Amino acid sequence: MERYNVVEIKEDVTSRNNLFAAEIKRKLADKKVFYLNVMASPGSGKTTLLAELIRRLKGDYKIGVIEADIDSSVDAETISKTGVRTLQMHTAGACHITCQMSYEALCALGYEDLDVVFLENVGNLVCPAEFDTGASENLVLLSTPEGDDKPKKYPLMFQVANVVAVTKTDVADVFDFSAERAEKNVRSRNGTAPVFFLSVVAQEGVDDLERYLRQKINMVKNG
Amino acid sequence: MERYNVVEIKEDVTSRNNLFAAEIKRKLADKKVFYLNVMASPGSGKTTLLAELIRRLKGDYKIGVIEADIDSSVDAETISKTGVRTLQMHTAGACHITCQMSYEALCALGYEDLDVVFLENVGNLVCPAEFDTGASENLVLLSTPEGDDKPKKYPLMFQVANVVAVTKTDVADVFDFSAERAEKNVRSRNGTAPVFFLSVVAQEGVDDLERYLRQKINMVKNG
Repeated sequence: MERYNVVEIKEDVTSRNNLFAAEIKRKLADKKVFYLNVMASPGSGKTTLLAELIRRLKGDYKIGVIEADIDSSVDAETISKTGVRTLQMHTAGACHITCQMSYEALCALGYEDLDVVFLENVGNLVCPAEFDTGASENLVLLSTPEGDDKPKKYPLMFQVANVVAVTKTDVADVFDFSAERAEKNVRSRNGTAPVFFLSVVAQEGVDDLERYLRQKINMVKNG
Repeated sequence: MERYNVVEIKEDVTSRNNLFAAEIKRKLADKKVFYLNVMASPGSGKTTLLAELIRRLKGDYKIGVIEADIDSSVDAETISKTGVRTLQMHTAGACHITCQMSYEALCALGYEDLDVVFLENVGNLVCPAEFDTGASENLVLLSTPEGDDKPKKYPLMFQVANVVAVTKTDVADVFDFSAERAEKNVRSRNGTAPVFFLSVVAQEGVDDLERYLRQKINMVKNG
């Protein structure tokens, strides 16, 4: 028998966050809610893509949206025009969404009667990747004006992605953006996430992402 | 006489950082070095603009560049081709540059014999704004594909800017980017920073930013 107790105090913020994330996932699974965390750089087209997906999905599913920003309600104004339940969350300067913030927003939105909740995270290719929000999946966007090398420079974001969407493909040529290089760079960080290439403006490639999401939503709904 | 000592422990990371920033500023002023901290979103054109400015300035000034990234050496490879002294700094996952990191990089680069040091910060419109790097000025970039509303959503970054450059103006129309709205949104956060509109690809507007920087560099050099 040991003569002393050992208390492990090296518990970090992230591990506490992850425990709570697992609890959120259980609550959502219990109510059959699919929760998608959308992450990307500022101006990569998150709001535009979400508005388009809502337009395509809202006839079949009950949808809610959480817009996370440091300041302003620009995105919530855009999304609320689609007619779905929308919540603007201000992060008080924070560069990411913790589980606590995610759960408070889900409750403020009222998630229990919804089929789908979209979380538009703070525009930031670094910090949001460090915090599990309790989402069913992480959708990471990469817009062609940013360049096809971004997965090299922001490794964690592409590691935690369950699905990647390359946006603004209609202007890829202007920015010398190569789909092949982009896919290779995503693969160097992530062996499994499907990569969709799309342009909402040109209405190209959105069908494939829509089909993917319908499958995932239905799995949760029927699961 | 008091019967006890009071120790103020409510000293935060930022205030310690700012004390050290002031020390870096003194060291740089002593050696007449102009130190420019360049901040922006991923893919906003920081490296492209720096390479162009270096090309224009290197005949008159001795220049060094610190490239800060979480991973990869893509940008250092690009910049080193201009022939100036270049250092790639990896932040080990960190989303920003503290003063300590800034000073270590300055020493590793060797700043004492230089006229100008450019720091290309981590691509991130949130966290780098919170940490004074000891730079003479902060240059904040906003690229037209990101949208003219970004100063509304990322207030601190535009508050700490000494000068703002709107990049990729050659494609402004494609992205419905309004120079008037952009300037108005910058002004809502910052009453004094000049705003330059430019495109390196189209060689538009770079002259004005170059002129501004030459004035600032000469003031330090002759001061």
